[in-house]
Amino acid sequence: MRASNRPADQLRPVRITRQFTRHAEGSVLVEFGETKVICTASVEEAVPSFLKGKGQGWVTAEYGMLPRSTHSRMRREAAQGKQSGRTQEIQRLIGRSLRAVVDLAKLGERQIVIDCDVIQADGGTRTASITGAFVALTDAINGLIADGKLTESPIREHIAAISVGVVGDTPVLDLDYPEDSACETDMNVVMTGSGHFVEIQGTAEGVPFSRAEMNALLDLAEKGIKELIALQKTALAG
Amino acid sequence: MRASNRPADQLRPVRITRQFTRHAEGSVLVEFGETKVICTASVEEAVPSFLKGKGQGWVTAEYGMLPRSTHSRMRREAAQGKQSGRTQEIQRLIGRSLRAVVDLAKLGERQIVIDCDVIQADGGTRTASITGAFVALTDAINGLIADGKLTESPIREHIAAISVGVVGDTPVLDLDYPEDSACETDMNVVMTGSGHFVEIQGTAEGVPFSRAEMNALLDLAEKGIKELIALQKTALAG
Amino acid sequence: MRASNRPADQLRPVRITRQFTRHAEGSVLVEFGETKVICTASVEEAVPSFLKGKGQGWVTAEYGMLPRSTHSRMRREAAQGKQSGRTQEIQRLIGRSLRAVVDLAKLGERQIVIDCDVIQADGGTRTASITGAFVALTDAINGLIADGKLTESPIREHIAAISVGVVGDTPVLDLDYPEDSACETDMNVVMTGSGHFVEIQGTAEGVPFSRAEMNALLDLAEKGIKELIALQKTALAG
Amino acid sequence: MRASNRPADQLRPVRITRQFTRHAEGSVLVEFGETKVICTASVEEAVPSFLKGKGQGWVTAEYGMLPRSTHSRMRREAAQGKQSGRTQEIQRLIGRSLRAVVDLAKLGERQIVIDCDVIQADGGTRTASITGAFVALTDAINGLIADGKLTESPIREHIAAISVGVVGDTPVLDLDYPEDSACETDMNVVMTGSGHFVEIQGTAEGVPFSRAEMNALLDLAEKGIKELIALQKTALAG
Amino acid sequence: MRASNRPADQLRPVRITRQFTRHAEGSVLVEFGETKVICTASVEEAVPSFLKGKGQGWVTAEYGMLPRSTHSRMRREAAQGKQSGRTQEIQRLIGRSLRAVVDLAKLGERQIVIDCDVIQADGGTRTASITGAFVALTDAINGLIADGKLTESPIREHIAAISVGVVGDTPVLDLDYPEDSACETDMNVVMTGSGHFVEIQGTAEGVPFSRAEMNALLDLAEKGIKELIALQKTALAG
Amino acid sequence: MRASNRPADQLRPVRITRQFTRHAEGSVLVEFGETKVICTASVEEAVPSFLKGKGQGWVTAEYGMLPRSTHSRMRREAAQGKQSGRTQEIQRLIGRSLRAVVDLAKLGERQIVIDCDVIQADGGTRTASITGAFVALTDAINGLIADGKLTESPIREHIAAISVGVVGDTPVLDLDYPEDSACETDMNVVMTGSGHFVEIQGTAEGVPFSRAEMNALLDLAEKGIKELIALQKTALAG
Repeated sequence: MRASNRPADQLRPVRITRQFTRHAEGSVLVEFGETKVICTASVEEAVPSFLKGKGQGWVTAEYGMLPRSTHSRMRREAAQGKQSGRTQEIQRLIGRSLRAVVDLAKLGERQIVIDCDVIQADGGTRTASITGAFVALTDAINGLIADGKLTESPIREHIAAISVGVVGDTPVLDLDYPEDSACETDMNVVMTGSGHFVEIQGTAEGVPFSRAEMNALLDLAEKGIKELIALQKTALAG
Repeated sequence: MRASNRPADQLRPVRITRQFTRHAEGSVLVEFGETKVICTASVEEAVPSFLKGKGQGWVTAEYGMLPRSTHSRMRREAAQGKQSGRTQEIQRLIGRSLRAVVDLAKLGERQIVIDCDVIQADGGTRTASITGAFVALTDAINGLIADGKLTESPIREHIAAISVGVVGDTPVLDLDYPEDSACETDMNVVMTGSGHFVEIQGTAEGVPFSRAEMNALLDLAEKGIKELIALQKTALAG
Repeated sequence: MRASNRPADQLRPVRITRQFTRHAEGSVLVEFGETKVICTASVEEAVPSFLKGKGQGWVTAEYGMLPRSTHSRMRREAAQGKQSGRTQEIQRLIGRSLRAVVDLAKLGERQIVIDCDVIQADGGTRTASITGAFVALTDAINGLIADGKLTESPIREHIAAISVGVVGDTPVLDLDYPEDSACETDMNVVMTGSGHFVEIQGTAEGVPFSRAEMNALLDLAEKGIKELIALQKTALAG
Repeated sequence: MRASNRPADQLRPVRITRQFTRHAEGSVLVEFGETKVICTASVEEAVPSFLKGKGQGWVTAEYGMLPRSTHSRMRREAAQGKQSGRTQEIQRLIGRSLRAVVDLAKLGERQIVIDCDVIQADGGTRTASITGAFVALTDAINGLIADGKLTESPIREHIAAISVGVVGDTPVLDLDYPEDSACETDMNVVMTGSGHFVEIQGTAEGVPFSRAEMNALLDLAEKGIKELIALQKTALAG
Repeated sequence: MRASNRPADQLRPVRITRQFTRHAEGSVLVEFGETKVICTASVEEAVPSFLKGKGQGWVTAEYGMLPRSTHSRMRREAAQGKQSGRTQEIQRLIGRSLRAVVDLAKLGERQIVIDCDVIQADGGTRTASITGAFVALTDAINGLIADGKLTESPIREHIAAISVGVVGDTPVLDLDYPEDSACETDMNVVMTGSGHFVEIQGTAEGVPFSRAEMNALLDLAEKGIKELIALQKTALAG
Repeated sequence: MRASNRPADQLRPVRITRQFTRHAEGSVLVEFGETKVICTASVEEAVPSFLKGKGQGWVTAEYGMLPRSTHSRMRREAAQGKQSGRTQEIQRLIGRSLRAVVDLAKLGERQIVIDCDVIQADGGTRTASITGAFVALTDAINGLIADGKLTESPIREHIAAISVGVVGDTPVLDLDYPEDSACETDMNVVMTGSGHFVEIQGTAEGVPFSRAEMNALLDLAEKGIKELIALQKTALAG
């Protein structure tokens, strides 16, 4: 049993609340236990300049943390005048992941901007962001269909993400902050509804990891992502 | 009757939810109708360098809006690399207002940082921020007393803020976004529990205003702030 | 009597020198006692992008202080790589104030940029700036009329500004730097020739202020601004 | 056979030239085919502030590309005023990878800064950087031992990195730029001399990848990294 | 005769007004014809960090132009968030020139910061700045002597600067803006009271220049600087 | 004899290696003794916006130093977020120098960007940069001719640069870093193949210099530049 009283292969309680705020075309509050992220999807009827006139759309993402989403207050990136390397890594990952399941040609010459803002952090903010962002993106696209701007959905399949890691000697699923701080190896896995990988990012924070550990971690991730995608489907059906 | 179906002197429904997030020493979700702001108070056991060794504390504030808190998406200030003039004006106002009711010498050599982050905007974000921030600040200071770090509260009295304005020819209380966009004159008033002014900022957006209009606006503001302070007291007693 | 040997309701000696520098379409040196500000008005035959094609003009302002305009040297904002929050507040105030008396549609698709640069500071730089900027703006617009680019003036009426404050217990007019540093309440008032308010910004630096004090301050401001507008008229007639 | 005339599991010709420039404590030109990176290691007898007084050292890395190291000229990051998200990701990866094989406590309170500057790019700049940086780091540490500043090496084992990817349907080793641009899946693998993983970063650029493909890619990477470590050893023995 | 009605070897009318503003330890308005620059000298009882504890002082300079000092309005550097390359070149030149005639050890552990702010530009702003800055610096140092903080002056000798250039085919002294824009070669010369060079910066804007032209230009510069130094002496005696 | 074992009028061994990297239209490694600079020329079929539609081309330059090109590591300008004043001065000098020998109208509406990146520094990086950049520029232009995009070369004549200085009391040619650090006067001279000056920048680092010293330095520079231009010709013929 883990400190959080979960078996090694158990997700934290996950909640997906749609229409969380009112202005965005898609707006989701996603909670992985005590980690809470607002994911909004904003439709813009223009594409970035590098895509102008190419007959395709774009999906991109930005990520931020409220200064006191964390145990001790972080400096506000807007006040510092730049986004940290970590922030940029995460928002690039979110954007890449979502684009992997969207047919950009079918989206047409428009852009959907995903904003993932962490209001409370307890580990796994990037995986919660991807998982929630997919739901917000789907809502925004369904709105385009309802408005007659799209005739069919450019979304090919579901996508979700989870973290796995080796804590002590045990591979575990969905690390909370204390586990994340203590783990030997930390891996973020992004997978589609059909069970294929879009991203695998494994890092040995302490001791380098073996091929066997890697395989155990991927097994856990696969299990967790299947559950997350089921939760996305329930939320979207709600 | 106003478009929002309120009489001229009526506040929007106001809700103050304490302990909204878990890490901050004070954490409040304040809602003025559809305007929603998370206000956190973070205690830091150090003061800014200009106060080192002067035997007093400091209270300061930062303000931000989630990119899609607004009707159309705003650019993220962290991505742009700077805070707008408007953001800086507002956070300076929040900090100044709170300091007006805190005995900084009694606070001791520590700083309390207030973060006001707008998750949904519908007019009046700065007045909601001040009103909510006072509650978060009080919670943080009560925590210091509970921990034995302070023996008495450095807070002298309550403080709250409201907007008033001339819409059409009518002075009204607590403007929502459509009223704010249409008004001739917009005034933000910050007042203490004892009925004294801390800040008055009146701007003629359209037609310059007369002394008589100004007096009518101040009467409305006084009424509204008394109600807000009553709501703060109820929330803090809860 | 005040430390500066003035009665409570007396302005400092005010001088307005037109054509102070030679390149700008309007160029004014304004002096409120020892406070000296160069105000230039530059006509640009284009509008900012948010106004393109809307058939109206724009008036905007920028503000700066020479590093050694102050008692001790301030850091140069250009070297620091950003304008302070105070600078941005002031330049937004100047621009808003001037726009309140200009019919932007009549101005046509052009922009007038006002630069207010403080070469010596002794309190009241923002009110001196507004008062001087109006004269520079008028000269620039008269130049447009003289050149046949405008047939009638888009200026509706005069505008000027003054500071008032409670020093000790006494409301006084036109605070110099020692008064400004010591005052309990500081208020900047921007008023038109017809006696209506465009901006009122009152701040309790020390003790919050009452409605009665506010009224006394507004009476003083009204008196001062009437005198300033008379001085503007004399200067423009010169 | 690949367009580059290599079998799927063959590295490009790899050259490691030590003492490439003269001022740095370690200086290596590493070439993976036409990709050429200068890796220098600079010893600084101080640690970053977050480590002061903790009795341990630090290893960090910075990465850059000469503007015309690429097919068409890239904008110079120093002129743009910021490092791209890609640059930050890569330099964080290099630093993390090297720290994984260094006993920071044994290094003592000093910092080694690795600079990886790409003078010619043809795919695989980050893996070449890590592979070359390890040699520069080793030279710098051997210098500290020779100078009597360290009595034993804090380096635990070798580390090297290689890219693998699925091009067409074939998993291949050490992608050059044309392969990298065309591949479905791209994976960077960082592995130690004892065959454990430090980082795995796999991204589906086109079609998501299966577990089987992933295993084939890891097999290739393992083979390639063993060869790279043999080349590092030869270079260090030279 | 030149367009400005001056013989080739004649300076524009030069005026040096001391005590131009009141807060700075030295404050000079220098005018070279229609070029007008405010030069202030600020004494700071601390040195930059790279000089701490070395028992010597420092003299440095900053330079700026008011946005409408020029024929058409320039963008404000503080608003753009950086100083141009030209600004940095000029302020480095001013600082270097002044340091050449100051015994920094005798100055003691203090810094004198020179600010040169152009309020009206008509060519030669950098040479006017150096010439005026020397007078402001002298006043500041004389103040230190008067206050008993220095017993003897660290200034070794006078320094002044002038521009010379080839306009058409004629070498001329002290170019105004129309001449500067049209000239083939432009040279700025900084020389001491004893007739030695501190800086020579010659640039062929159009046709490269010969050794003979260079010698003619230096002859002119020498004549002009002697006159400027005489004017500095008169001003300081005033 | 100098510390470097050279007579006063001797250049360091100079090497010019063309086609040093493979992507640029011109790519040169230039070595002045231990100073090594990569100079690339990139052809872009567009001009900067200030030249659009004017029927002429542009040549510009950027300069950088690898962080550990120097004795102790310098901070990376891209990480600091800005280029130093020194960097800007040097890159402006390189661009100006090259433009002096190019007929921009004949170049047509295209831009050639020169990048000079110092990989090892031992004094004279700016003069090596100009000397090498000319060769890279020539290669790029010859490529345009070979491709039929130009029918004749817009290059009017050769250009090269050298530093001279007074070390001790002796004028010497081509200062290395120890000489540069110790010299009284430092002068950079840029001269054309026909023996005319394009830039002369002389600075008294220590004692101001006389006209006689200046003449001795120019004699040395003339000799050195003639040798450099001969070396450029040999390299271009190779």
